[in-house]
Amino acid sequence: MSPLKPGRGRRRAEDVRRAAVAAATELLFEEGIRNVTFEKVAARAGVSKVTLYKWWPSPGSLAFEGYFGALEDVLSFPDTGDLRADLTTQLHAFVALLQRRGGVVAEIIGAAQSDPELAAALSAQYVRPRRDLAVDRLAAARRAGQIRPDVDLETIVDQLWGACYHRLLMPAEPLSTAFTDRLLDNLLRGITPDGPHRDEPSAPTD
Amino acid sequence: MSPLKPGRGRRRAEDVRRAAVAAATELLFEEGIRNVTFEKVAARAGVSKVTLYKWWPSPGSLAFEGYFGALEDVLSFPDTGDLRADLTTQLHAFVALLQRRGGVVAEIIGAAQSDPELAAALSAQYVRPRRDLAVDRLAAARRAGQIRPDVDLETIVDQLWGACYHRLLMPAEPLSTAFTDRLLDNLLRGITPDGPHRDEPSAPTD
Repeated sequence: MSPLKPGRGRRRAEDVRRAAVAAATELLFEEGIRNVTFEKVAARAGVSKVTLYKWWPSPGSLAFEGYFGALEDVLSFPDTGDLRADLTTQLHAFVALLQRRGGVVAEIIGAAQSDPELAAALSAQYVRPRRDLAVDRLAAARRAGQIRPDVDLETIVDQLWGACYHRLLMPAEPLSTAFTDRLLDNLLRGITPDGPHRDEPSAPTD
Repeated sequence: MSPLKPGRGRRRAEDVRRAAVAAATELLFEEGIRNVTFEKVAARAGVSKVTLYKWWPSPGSLAFEGYFGALEDVLSFPDTGDLRADLTTQLHAFVALLQRRGGVVAEIIGAAQSDPELAAALSAQYVRPRRDLAVDRLAAARRAGQIRPDVDLETIVDQLWGACYHRLLMPAEPLSTAFTDRLLDNLLRGITPDGPHRDEPSAPTD
């Protein structure tokens, strides 16, 4: 990606970048986001602080870049053609991650609420790309006739993964694979007794 | 609002409490949660800082108590017997509030991710009671035969209000009444073409 600068005894920009991201990721998982400072990352990665300031608007955005890279494989979207099975696989992996690393995830999202630069990094490097991957998988299901043509796919993202983030950030009920199975069941079947394509829910009196 | 206690020259505890909460709420809406300090609340409410320290574990939890009180009326759950209409009314009011005060809401939830005392206050004074109110309304609908008996009502809360918080805290797509209408439609009808009570979604090839 970064063009090589041969000789001179200087590390390639790409190597420096990678070392900085790796150091920030380690610090993040070991000590939490508040301890990811340019000072500490520079020392651990053997790079200059000036370089870090040049490439990242804040230590938080650097930490976040590392974090996102670390998650990418865990959170891939399978496509076996079976929508329910594939979403179950992905949501179970997602919950397992939140059970293990949820503290760091919550901390990052929390910090982003009062740090516009971190918020911008979170949005560009995580929220938007993750939504797009989910919507791609859902669009394939819609093309295969497994989702009604009039359903807005972005809304489904909020009702599956967004519902999990809700339990992470505003905890009250358990965040478990049983929960994600219920999320999926509610959406695929609907929660009313009488099925889809009705404009009004049934309303018998009791 | 605060009844006067005659004689003695001392305000009743209840009055002092109410004055402190009112001052904290004003500060919160005027200046954001970071500017709600015991110092400023004490000055504005005319109460001693010692009293504030005695009653609230942190300025954040005091601010949050005021915030929750201010929202209670706006976010009530109507029960006209028509589930879709009632949820639509409530979700539209909720979105209107987030559109107007979403910055403060996001800031409070964000701060709670790294402030255990604020997290405890948020949970006890907001998350749990709000969930309970929603579940009460949903339970009435289930008794009226409008929701299948096997559906977990807590899960619905995450798929309606939780989905809205997702768009607030991890912004990417608009948080609008059109969005909450789609949330409701997805859940009430289900997103698959073939209706409920099927174990497998339909999977025609195309």
